[in-house]
Amino acid sequence: MLQKISIIGFGLIGSSIAREIKKNKLAKIISACDVSNKALKEIKSLKLANEITNKLEVSVQNANLIFICTPLSAYEGIFLKLRTIVNKNTIITDVGSSKSEVVHLAETILPKDFSYVPGHPIAGTEESGPKAGLLNLFRNRWFIITPSSLTRSTAKNKVINFWKKLGSKITVMNPKSHDNIMAITSHIPHLIAYNIVGTAAKLEDKIKSEVIKFSASGFRDFTRIASSDPTMWRDIVISNKKQILFMLQRFNKDLSHLEQSIKKENKRELFNIFNKTRNIRKKIVQAGQDIKAPNFGRKI
Amino acid sequence: MLQKISIIGFGLIGSSIAREIKKNKLAKIISACDVSNKALKEIKSLKLANEITNKLEVSVQNANLIFICTPLSAYEGIFLKLRTIVNKNTIITDVGSSKSEVVHLAETILPKDFSYVPGHPIAGTEESGPKAGLLNLFRNRWFIITPSSLTRSTAKNKVINFWKKLGSKITVMNPKSHDNIMAITSHIPHLIAYNIVGTAAKLEDKIKSEVIKFSASGFRDFTRIASSDPTMWRDIVISNKKQILFMLQRFNKDLSHLEQSIKKENKRELFNIFNKTRNIRKKIVQAGQDIKAPNFGRKI
Repeated sequence: MLQKISIIGFGLIGSSIAREIKKNKLAKIISACDVSNKALKEIKSLKLANEITNKLEVSVQNANLIFICTPLSAYEGIFLKLRTIVNKNTIITDVGSSKSEVVHLAETILPKDFSYVPGHPIAGTEESGPKAGLLNLFRNRWFIITPSSLTRSTAKNKVINFWKKLGSKITVMNPKSHDNIMAITSHIPHLIAYNIVGTAAKLEDKIKSEVIKFSASGFRDFTRIASSDPTMWRDIVISNKKQILFMLQRFNKDLSHLEQSIKKENKRELFNIFNKTRNIRKKIVQAGQDIKAPNFGRKI
Repeated sequence: MLQKISIIGFGLIGSSIAREIKKNKLAKIISACDVSNKALKEIKSLKLANEITNKLEVSVQNANLIFICTPLSAYEGIFLKLRTIVNKNTIITDVGSSKSEVVHLAETILPKDFSYVPGHPIAGTEESGPKAGLLNLFRNRWFIITPSSLTRSTAKNKVINFWKKLGSKITVMNPKSHDNIMAITSHIPHLIAYNIVGTAAKLEDKIKSEVIKFSASGFRDFTRIASSDPTMWRDIVISNKKQILFMLQRFNKDLSHLEQSIKKENKRELFNIFNKTRNIRKKIVQAGQDIKAPNFGRKI
């Protein structure tokens, strides 16, 4: 059991980690740090932390392990502060969804003897805030480590052991591969979901109410991920801009081909396009990454 | 109780209708007609029909009510046959996802005293075939009627009463409005889901296996609707080509704006784009068109 774990940014992920630390008795002191007064009040009522503060320097004092769980745009300021108030004995880790840029920031800002283990749990829901956190959120889900020059093996193993206790499966890759894979599995899907829901939101009120009424015909699937936290996503798309724009180009090229096939009423090509995608769904279900039940098991 | 109901095209929707007819005793004879030998065998083993045939003329003989549940490209041939073998006392209805074109076909091919009630139940799953059918699939879901010049009120009311018995909510609109609304709620969502999954399918094998592994980060949501029946979707996009291309233009314009905002790292605009979409999700859940539970209530 650690003496103290500090969680900077106590939203869906931060508070889910806290729930696990409390349940599994992984630290004597859980310190919750957040800049939002609303969040601080919620954390208090949830009784998930022994220390609740909006001051980073208070939260990280004497912490053995620091989780950065804020939107990515806050990282630079956090690294600049940590540089002056913690030391090489403290392990710094994070849960950010884009890695190359933050690894570069850490390597630039933090002293060479500091310990930083960049991480990303592939788990979450479309909700946000301390109340949205869940126990078992990370169970059987992947935790990706993208080592930096500040990632020493002792610290890395401690972080790995932590996530294993939460039930996660561990994998290690370099930051660029991570960002490349996340662009196609997460960032582009979120972008186009935001985009289609945005296109619908701009329709006249009369049609918009019909869109809601008949959303079960496909549209509703997209509204789930398009209701994720806007600040978090603003920061992700800026942070992983290069890989996202590259993958978006491929998406656009394919969509333009699909559009042409519709214009030309090219039956054979349309069938081919719509036929080759079933297999990926099957493999995802086989890999235990989604449930087999139709309609995601929804009763309605 | 009707004497005989004929179901032409016995897939997910056709067989779900048969399940309801059988359970609610809505007809003495259920006749199942399908062109696929595999489907015919499945129908036999499911014991959902009193008559199983691949011959339209056999199935519709003496039927009081005919459900066309085939892909849209089969409609023209079906109308041409029905013209010569049924009469004004038989009610013809359907469940197609695109309406203007088929209404026009029916009005062109069928005699003026024939009875055709064009319909579309907003229900289904990503699966297909007779085995994929479900009881209660239409309960609390919308059934849309898009009247044609062949839709007389007696026949319309009979079809309405039929769907009410299945638990559906009924709404009436013109074919063009239907196609306009479905373009944004169903057809474009399916197209872009097929497209993103298609883009992923073209990646090198190594990355593709990573995409499956980490699909829980957003991508898996899209694979569900992108595993729908390819023949059905080929026909839908051709049939509703005009509305789909119009709506796709809007989608592309919005996506291009989003792309530019990422390129320019326009934080304020990106936040606005990602912030305005949450409200639609809330309204969909309020309208009872999706469940409130995070992750569609998925346990994994």
